[in-house]
Amino acid sequence: MPKLLILSKQAEKYARHIESAGLPQLDGMTFQASEDCEIVFGEPSLIREALPHLPRLKWIQSMWAGVEPLLNPALRRDYLLTNVRGVFGGLMSEFVIGYLLVHERRIFQRLEAQKNRVWDESVTGTLNGKTIGLLGVGSIGAELAITAKFFGMTVHGYTRESESSKHVDKYFHGANLPDFASGLDYLVSVLPNTAETGQIVNADLLNALPSRAYFINIGRGQVVDEPALVEALRQNKIAGAVLDVFEEEPLPTEHPFWTTPNLLMTFHTSAPSFPEDIAKIFIENYLLYIEGKPLKYRVDFEKGY
Amino acid sequence: MPKLLILSKQAEKYARHIESAGLPQLDGMTFQASEDCEIVFGEPSLIREALPHLPRLKWIQSMWAGVEPLLNPALRRDYLLTNVRGVFGGLMSEFVIGYLLVHERRIFQRLEAQKNRVWDESVTGTLNGKTIGLLGVGSIGAELAITAKFFGMTVHGYTRESESSKHVDKYFHGANLPDFASGLDYLVSVLPNTAETGQIVNADLLNALPSRAYFINIGRGQVVDEPALVEALRQNKIAGAVLDVFEEEPLPTEHPFWTTPNLLMTFHTSAPSFPEDIAKIFIENYLLYIEGKPLKYRVDFEKGY
Repeated sequence: MPKLLILSKQAEKYARHIESAGLPQLDGMTFQASEDCEIVFGEPSLIREALPHLPRLKWIQSMWAGVEPLLNPALRRDYLLTNVRGVFGGLMSEFVIGYLLVHERRIFQRLEAQKNRVWDESVTGTLNGKTIGLLGVGSIGAELAITAKFFGMTVHGYTRESESSKHVDKYFHGANLPDFASGLDYLVSVLPNTAETGQIVNADLLNALPSRAYFINIGRGQVVDEPALVEALRQNKIAGAVLDVFEEEPLPTEHPFWTTPNLLMTFHTSAPSFPEDIAKIFIENYLLYIEGKPLKYRVDFEKGY
Repeated sequence: MPKLLILSKQAEKYARHIESAGLPQLDGMTFQASEDCEIVFGEPSLIREALPHLPRLKWIQSMWAGVEPLLNPALRRDYLLTNVRGVFGGLMSEFVIGYLLVHERRIFQRLEAQKNRVWDESVTGTLNGKTIGLLGVGSIGAELAITAKFFGMTVHGYTRESESSKHVDKYFHGANLPDFASGLDYLVSVLPNTAETGQIVNADLLNALPSRAYFINIGRGQVVDEPALVEALRQNKIAGAVLDVFEEEPLPTEHPFWTTPNLLMTFHTSAPSFPEDIAKIFIENYLLYIEGKPLKYRVDFEKGY
């Protein structure tokens, strides 16, 4: 009879979703860490603080896809860690396609024209036939690939070694990063923050992109060499960037990104967490847990995802 | 051995596409109407002027989907008229999804936040689960329905009688217009300008929409009662509108639309005509024509499409 600790700013909302599922064998829920909690369902940054106070901890279900706060090697790892997958791919696809269309269809320019009472019938571009490159092809990348194919795009993927998505037209690995970059109209990073991904988007990669290319980061800010990106945009080495994530969040007020030309910011909102969706994943995993079956979306502490 | 007249601001571009197709039995091309022209491939507004000077005319392939300039009952109808279908659906789907995402994902608000150095992490909406209503479900509407379903939307369709697209979840006809409107998050008109569609988007229809609803017009401007739309937006009876088409184009500088709140304009650019795509349709139909087979995309002068 496990007891559940919920750690979230929206803990009560989550509790209601879980309550209405009528989970078997659950020995109550609490919003405060206590000695008898065996399961934690929460936001990694809050869980991190609670870790020392959970002697009977067996399983943590993260409410986020990214679990960096729990990956510090100094922290305990004597429990099962699962994260959220599958729910963010659709939302992130909407986000990426939205900004690609803002660019192709000149949506900001039309707004300016309207303000100036100018009948601006300049011909716009289309996604059809453009090439998108995915830095990282996990569950989110695979969903993006499906969406890009739907709009008639060519999809390139850069991964460590896996080639699991059939919707990627061409894969690149290892030292092939400049090759991967050279043919792209759009570069989208969905990479998590791990030892291997740090500053992978650096001056070399940015220089390898065509000058027409746009960069979109919906993974983690640590993947980007931020001064190199500012430089690339200032010198028009690439056409633009949309950044949802940053090395430091919230972004400090004095950061150059706020005023870098052709740089748009979206403040870590690309994949809103709807408690209903996240609770569903917990409930599904809980039912596996009490039956002693393998849980879904297990995180490898070494790999970091 | 038919002779071809090409009438377009981009006539030379079209001529190159046709030339490189090496069409059999073609007795030359011209950019000026002359007595011996049997086939015309062009923009309806230019063709209209040429009509009296084409005694041997047998077939007109319009470069546009809309052929209103040729539908005036005072004009001759002693020829076969075909228009362009199939190529605009994808482009219009991009356009509609782009503006739906601008709204759902608060893309303009994020831009404002960035200008003000505000970390705006307010949660956005999603297309998933929203309901879109299509006024008109021809080839473009059907393509829109497929795209909306791809993003998890519910699709309602209003047509005279046809229920040809399987991707429409629920059809409405005839006097059912207010019913159709009442459940929508988005209303999209793809209606052509015909005797039956004039001002179908009037105060009654706008009042039947929920106040959260957005209206998008990518069909023809004559479908909208323009003063009623201004009124609905000024009184927040609907949340916003995106207009690509207008009763008078270019829109007169003094028209109230320029400054109506929550109204965006896109200056008849939702489906750019790429000569390559349009030429393909002509070539396909030409090959049918010289073999005496039925042409594709034939327009019914009475119906107007």
